[in-house]
Amino acid sequence: MLSKNYEVFIGCEANFDTADIVLFGAPYDSTTSYRPGARFGCRAIRTESGGLETYSPYQDKDLTERSICDSGDIELPFGASEQALYLIKKRADVILNAGKVPFMLGGEHLVTLGAVQAAYAKYPNLSIIHFDAHTDLRDDYLGVKLSHACVIRRCWDMLGNGRIWQFGIRSGDKAEFAWANAGHTHLQKFDFSGLTDVLQNLSGQPVYFTLDLDVLDPAYFPGTGTPEAGGVTFRELLDATLTVCRHANVVALDVNELAPNLDASGVSTAVAGKLVRELLLAI
Amino acid sequence: MLSKNYEVFIGCEANFDTADIVLFGAPYDSTTSYRPGARFGCRAIRTESGGLETYSPYQDKDLTERSICDSGDIELPFGASEQALYLIKKRADVILNAGKVPFMLGGEHLVTLGAVQAAYAKYPNLSIIHFDAHTDLRDDYLGVKLSHACVIRRCWDMLGNGRIWQFGIRSGDKAEFAWANAGHTHLQKFDFSGLTDVLQNLSGQPVYFTLDLDVLDPAYFPGTGTPEAGGVTFRELLDATLTVCRHANVVALDVNELAPNLDASGVSTAVAGKLVRELLLAI
Amino acid sequence: MLSKNYEVFIGCEANFDTADIVLFGAPYDSTTSYRPGARFGCRAIRTESGGLETYSPYQDKDLTERSICDSGDIELPFGASEQALYLIKKRADVILNAGKVPFMLGGEHLVTLGAVQAAYAKYPNLSIIHFDAHTDLRDDYLGVKLSHACVIRRCWDMLGNGRIWQFGIRSGDKAEFAWANAGHTHLQKFDFSGLTDVLQNLSGQPVYFTLDLDVLDPAYFPGTGTPEAGGVTFRELLDATLTVCRHANVVALDVNELAPNLDASGVSTAVAGKLVRELLLAI
Amino acid sequence: MLSKNYEVFIGCEANFDTADIVLFGAPYDSTTSYRPGARFGCRAIRTESGGLETYSPYQDKDLTERSICDSGDIELPFGASEQALYLIKKRADVILNAGKVPFMLGGEHLVTLGAVQAAYAKYPNLSIIHFDAHTDLRDDYLGVKLSHACVIRRCWDMLGNGRIWQFGIRSGDKAEFAWANAGHTHLQKFDFSGLTDVLQNLSGQPVYFTLDLDVLDPAYFPGTGTPEAGGVTFRELLDATLTVCRHANVVALDVNELAPNLDASGVSTAVAGKLVRELLLAI
Amino acid sequence: MLSKNYEVFIGCEANFDTADIVLFGAPYDSTTSYRPGARFGCRAIRTESGGLETYSPYQDKDLTERSICDSGDIELPFGASEQALYLIKKRADVILNAGKVPFMLGGEHLVTLGAVQAAYAKYPNLSIIHFDAHTDLRDDYLGVKLSHACVIRRCWDMLGNGRIWQFGIRSGDKAEFAWANAGHTHLQKFDFSGLTDVLQNLSGQPVYFTLDLDVLDPAYFPGTGTPEAGGVTFRELLDATLTVCRHANVVALDVNELAPNLDASGVSTAVAGKLVRELLLAI
Amino acid sequence: MLSKNYEVFIGCEANFDTADIVLFGAPYDSTTSYRPGARFGCRAIRTESGGLETYSPYQDKDLTERSICDSGDIELPFGASEQALYLIKKRADVILNAGKVPFMLGGEHLVTLGAVQAAYAKYPNLSIIHFDAHTDLRDDYLGVKLSHACVIRRCWDMLGNGRIWQFGIRSGDKAEFAWANAGHTHLQKFDFSGLTDVLQNLSGQPVYFTLDLDVLDPAYFPGTGTPEAGGVTFRELLDATLTVCRHANVVALDVNELAPNLDASGVSTAVAGKLVRELLLAI
Repeated sequence: MLSKNYEVFIGCEANFDTADIVLFGAPYDSTTSYRPGARFGCRAIRTESGGLETYSPYQDKDLTERSICDSGDIELPFGASEQALYLIKKRADVILNAGKVPFMLGGEHLVTLGAVQAAYAKYPNLSIIHFDAHTDLRDDYLGVKLSHACVIRRCWDMLGNGRIWQFGIRSGDKAEFAWANAGHTHLQKFDFSGLTDVLQNLSGQPVYFTLDLDVLDPAYFPGTGTPEAGGVTFRELLDATLTVCRHANVVALDVNELAPNLDASGVSTAVAGKLVRELLLAI
Repeated sequence: MLSKNYEVFIGCEANFDTADIVLFGAPYDSTTSYRPGARFGCRAIRTESGGLETYSPYQDKDLTERSICDSGDIELPFGASEQALYLIKKRADVILNAGKVPFMLGGEHLVTLGAVQAAYAKYPNLSIIHFDAHTDLRDDYLGVKLSHACVIRRCWDMLGNGRIWQFGIRSGDKAEFAWANAGHTHLQKFDFSGLTDVLQNLSGQPVYFTLDLDVLDPAYFPGTGTPEAGGVTFRELLDATLTVCRHANVVALDVNELAPNLDASGVSTAVAGKLVRELLLAI
Repeated sequence: MLSKNYEVFIGCEANFDTADIVLFGAPYDSTTSYRPGARFGCRAIRTESGGLETYSPYQDKDLTERSICDSGDIELPFGASEQALYLIKKRADVILNAGKVPFMLGGEHLVTLGAVQAAYAKYPNLSIIHFDAHTDLRDDYLGVKLSHACVIRRCWDMLGNGRIWQFGIRSGDKAEFAWANAGHTHLQKFDFSGLTDVLQNLSGQPVYFTLDLDVLDPAYFPGTGTPEAGGVTFRELLDATLTVCRHANVVALDVNELAPNLDASGVSTAVAGKLVRELLLAI
Repeated sequence: MLSKNYEVFIGCEANFDTADIVLFGAPYDSTTSYRPGARFGCRAIRTESGGLETYSPYQDKDLTERSICDSGDIELPFGASEQALYLIKKRADVILNAGKVPFMLGGEHLVTLGAVQAAYAKYPNLSIIHFDAHTDLRDDYLGVKLSHACVIRRCWDMLGNGRIWQFGIRSGDKAEFAWANAGHTHLQKFDFSGLTDVLQNLSGQPVYFTLDLDVLDPAYFPGTGTPEAGGVTFRELLDATLTVCRHANVVALDVNELAPNLDASGVSTAVAGKLVRELLLAI
Repeated sequence: MLSKNYEVFIGCEANFDTADIVLFGAPYDSTTSYRPGARFGCRAIRTESGGLETYSPYQDKDLTERSICDSGDIELPFGASEQALYLIKKRADVILNAGKVPFMLGGEHLVTLGAVQAAYAKYPNLSIIHFDAHTDLRDDYLGVKLSHACVIRRCWDMLGNGRIWQFGIRSGDKAEFAWANAGHTHLQKFDFSGLTDVLQNLSGQPVYFTLDLDVLDPAYFPGTGTPEAGGVTFRELLDATLTVCRHANVVALDVNELAPNLDASGVSTAVAGKLVRELLLAI
Repeated sequence: MLSKNYEVFIGCEANFDTADIVLFGAPYDSTTSYRPGARFGCRAIRTESGGLETYSPYQDKDLTERSICDSGDIELPFGASEQALYLIKKRADVILNAGKVPFMLGGEHLVTLGAVQAAYAKYPNLSIIHFDAHTDLRDDYLGVKLSHACVIRRCWDMLGNGRIWQFGIRSGDKAEFAWANAGHTHLQKFDFSGLTDVLQNLSGQPVYFTLDLDVLDPAYFPGTGTPEAGGVTFRELLDATLTVCRHANVVALDVNELAPNLDASGVSTAVAGKLVRELLLAI
């Protein structure tokens, strides 16, 4: 990471050693089944972060007062999911082992699996808080186990029942909802009802927070591969996000599924960047 | 309809004889006065329906449990409204006479007239529930009687006073509002207030349900020829739509005015497709 | 203004002498630091106003019943802010001195300065009501004093403390918020809370109303240079806008920061045009 | 034409009486069968003409030295072709009867029929020079006789054999090519070979020149409803166009089938505008 | 292939048994390293083929006179290249074994490998004619052997030296050009020079023809993942393509790398469709 | 230039001291009078250079064999041309004084003035070779002397008669062409005729080479603020460019007027990047 050849997220200019939080990008979208482009998400968030301020009027905090390192994107081989996940896990391992919080920018949702593997290796009692429009609970997709449509199921393979808390879900096949409701995960349809209770119960335990941005209504976030009407507003998401950060012990996190090529207005990228800033200030 | 050369809407693979509901497309937009493209609506809804699931978590129902036939698009001659409406009426007649519910995908709003003619021929006591941003009550537009801006007025020519119930209206000229309020139609400005009462009064009577998607706020649905700010949210529309389906005797219906070319993000098409799915499951 | 070579805003065909309100455009965006295009705003609002009706169902009023002159765009030299502001002030002076209300269509927000200079010259006890996502309170931007990021600060240079009322603000650097809160301006974060009280206190005094359209959430208004998530809805803005017009003595006003090139769907232009219509009918 | 409410083409500010050439727009595209948008062509050519110079380095002439009137667009009723053609013919009649050259900006190619009717009424020995990618020789399209795909056939109905000279043609059905080659029209495939000979033979006779811009290769002109690969370059078209103007007695002309909405780069509009300038200077 | 749920390429309505040529689509682009979207190519070519005529004025032939079956797209699992290639090979095997010519529509260029495997299994003395901007001769890309950047190298692994003829090449790394020139392939830079000689030498031998559309200059074909300036014109490519079809014994072929999402004007899709039509008529 | 926070152009990773050529960006477009966006040019060229190879098959050379430093963009204040030009001159001074060749990426064409001032300070006998569609010879634009439309005139103010050689010019007002032809500059209309002779005469003398990319036909380069039909092809430009580099003593150069926001396909950026690579390898 010596010779830096990329733009960092605004205000994240600490070097690795002094940082508390370490950003990295996972530009991979080879298993996206509908409309690709999430590979461009992490870079867009960085290069457009110049349109943001470092100061948050929501939290009255400033990124310049924090110690955050942006370690750039991992170079990932398209069409080779296993190897990509291996490289992601390796990067997250390094950050976790240095006692820092890894903050991954996707990429499609499959990348979460690599980071969760790393977090789970360090925290065997890990729980996952999952904001998403989609269940992501299929066992396979056209025979493929490593797919964005299966990522939470793959996490469950590791963590088992009662460790995964899903919010905002409004799409999936019938079997996925049934499987969740059979005790495998906690699945809250449509919104964030019950989030505070969940956080109270988790209090103190290590949490991986994965935020699939398509939990937002497409009115607020059109730039994503599989937009799904009926989602939450930006303010609802910001509130829920800050609630998680304040009340949970977040040991690793990610923001994923921005496909900036699908929103020429640039708004989706701006939304993602603002959420990243708020997350960086809140955890 | 023997040799099928089109993609069907997801989960609508029944053949005509066994189906309860029959979809068809009316790709016509020659009278659109502002920005054309509604001709592409029906086809986009079908080809992009692969991005949806067949299962609705709102209704806990699945399209695979229903018997729906998608009979494809009618080939309509652009610039010849009378002939186009004749062909639409003919298709709707066939479906109605077979005891099935015709579900038309527009196309501009004028296409509704052909389907209403067919429904009125079978149900002389027909009422219309009309969700829209625009009154569509002009008597003519630059001298043309068959225009998207006159379609509800043309329906009134058949049905007469007290049979047309309009909701969500927020645009029209002064004379149109005055004409409506003079007892010709029931016109609810801006939202769905009073919908439940209307449905109670209509109970049992045959209803044609015409859903102009621009009743949605353009934030939720930018892909339409004449976007009009100040509309309803997706959730409000979904609620109202399910309410109609549950409490009215819908004998025919349509969804119109998606112009997918005007929304490069694909969100408007996804919104339309999801509403079609919910309608198919609710009626 | 004799030989007119432009399209007027719908329903604004009065000549200068008989008009109460005089529209003009200020197509300038040379200091825009992020994404340019506001120069195209005023013209787009005019040429797309044909998609609106002259009648407002919100106010039950019609533009055809008013006397409004659209005096066209000023030809402004790009890259020469001082000269541009001089030309804007001159146009506003002419209108004010004729006892009419100048209504300027931007352009970037810097253009407000020229019009405020004119209004302040006539009304030394002028106050400003400012709707915006951004504070616009920097003293300079990369050493430049005449910048869209400094425009309200430049207004304060003239008006001094206690005369500027800001609403909807959700972005700025830490120092700007601190400066505002040190008594220089009234700054209401995020929404329009307290607007009614402010208007009561201002009752009778001359008010300049400057509406930066990015106060809207980007879901409702993506077509702007610096979209900022977390804004108000169209209905909230419409309500607040009508409230200002009804309860304040608005002597001059502007609507700015539409960049139509950044929203290919045309929705942002339609939103801006509708607000202009409502403002024209309400003041 | 007294109260002008539109922008004129650059340098065309003469009034009707003193002008030699009179521009007008025919914003109609209701019979376009593939992708609409030609309705926006005439207006875009005008409003973007500000990006051109009035001076042509090709001809060393300047529009400011000519007397050209731009009489604006005709308001045409969408979906009513017969009436639209009637209004077009009427406008062209007025111009021709005043001893001036009508120069029509389309619109789809069908609009040519109205102007040819007017020219034929005045010049019974009229010939047509037709640049196009498509034959436009169908007798009907889905039963409709008034269609952009039939426009040259409709002209032939009036003029008869040996009066129509087609160049650049590279698309049509087999029967259309056969019909042309049976002596009905002169049809030059792919390019302008033989143009000089044709012009020599026509010398002195009145010529209607109709330029369908899709004769250009889509590389040079993507903004059209039915792009057809394999066309001529801009320089080839400019040469051929100037050749026609210099050697033929052009009594009326049109440029059509720009659909600016299909080329977001604006290049197609700039190409069309430049050709209009060169035509205005050359005839 | 019994229940068809897709649109066929225009004029390709023969059933499998009676057809000479069988079209199929390979919607895969998971190894695309720069800008994805080739997955949408095959479907776009089909659905937009309605904008073409079945008749070619270049060859004076008509698709309706041929017996061509369009067997639809293969459902391929994204992110699993090995499995995707297996499915492609299987489809090509079926077609070849039935004595017909497989004509594959990509998809990214990697898909060629599956079809070449099938052709090579039947024709051990197979040669490849390869039109492309890129060498595609890397041994691996970030460690991945199955990549669009390696596809011709993988073909060489099977066929060996002197069997691969590349034309139009204008991009690659230094080592790839050196490797080609060391006798592994025949590589003609920039254009089609020498094509006729090559075809004469190949006379009678079985040829696989793979046409990467980015051999075209991006002026003619912008809709592709890795546009490379300096390519051939449409007419040059059409000539070379017809030359191959007339003089070589083409036993299988493909057209690939159309990414329709990258060219909103639709021109690239129209270009691809026209080439497919000409190929279908020429082989 | 110590802490690098940007991506460098591919293969340009030398540090300043060891480099022969030093790239820098001048992201300024405040005087652009038609369509802005050139400010995004330099950054887009860099970030998209990853789509290029470092090797040129045209010259058989590789960037990895050269010593080139990419020193990043200058932060320039929008709307303040004088200050921007001062900062540009300062950067070019540093590079020239270190005995290296400054290679500037625009930005609008006005930025050339700053770099020419620096080159002229070092080389009083400087000549300029200027490729462009436009004369850029106005004395002022709406009273503004520092404008992209005046930049070559401002250079002439320094260099005087007989030092400026313009090629490819096809737009300007009549007076500009007359002024050029009165002996102030050498102006070659439309193409590169005479370039070799000019270079022979200049042999040995210091040359500033300014390449306005709109000299290309918009078919090849749509992404620019003022596209002008009738330009040269990419191959013609590449040939002419290499000719200049091989036969002239180029002491400083720039490439300007890419507006990547105006070409969503990305082709224009790819074209610009390829020309930059060829220039870097040829000088």
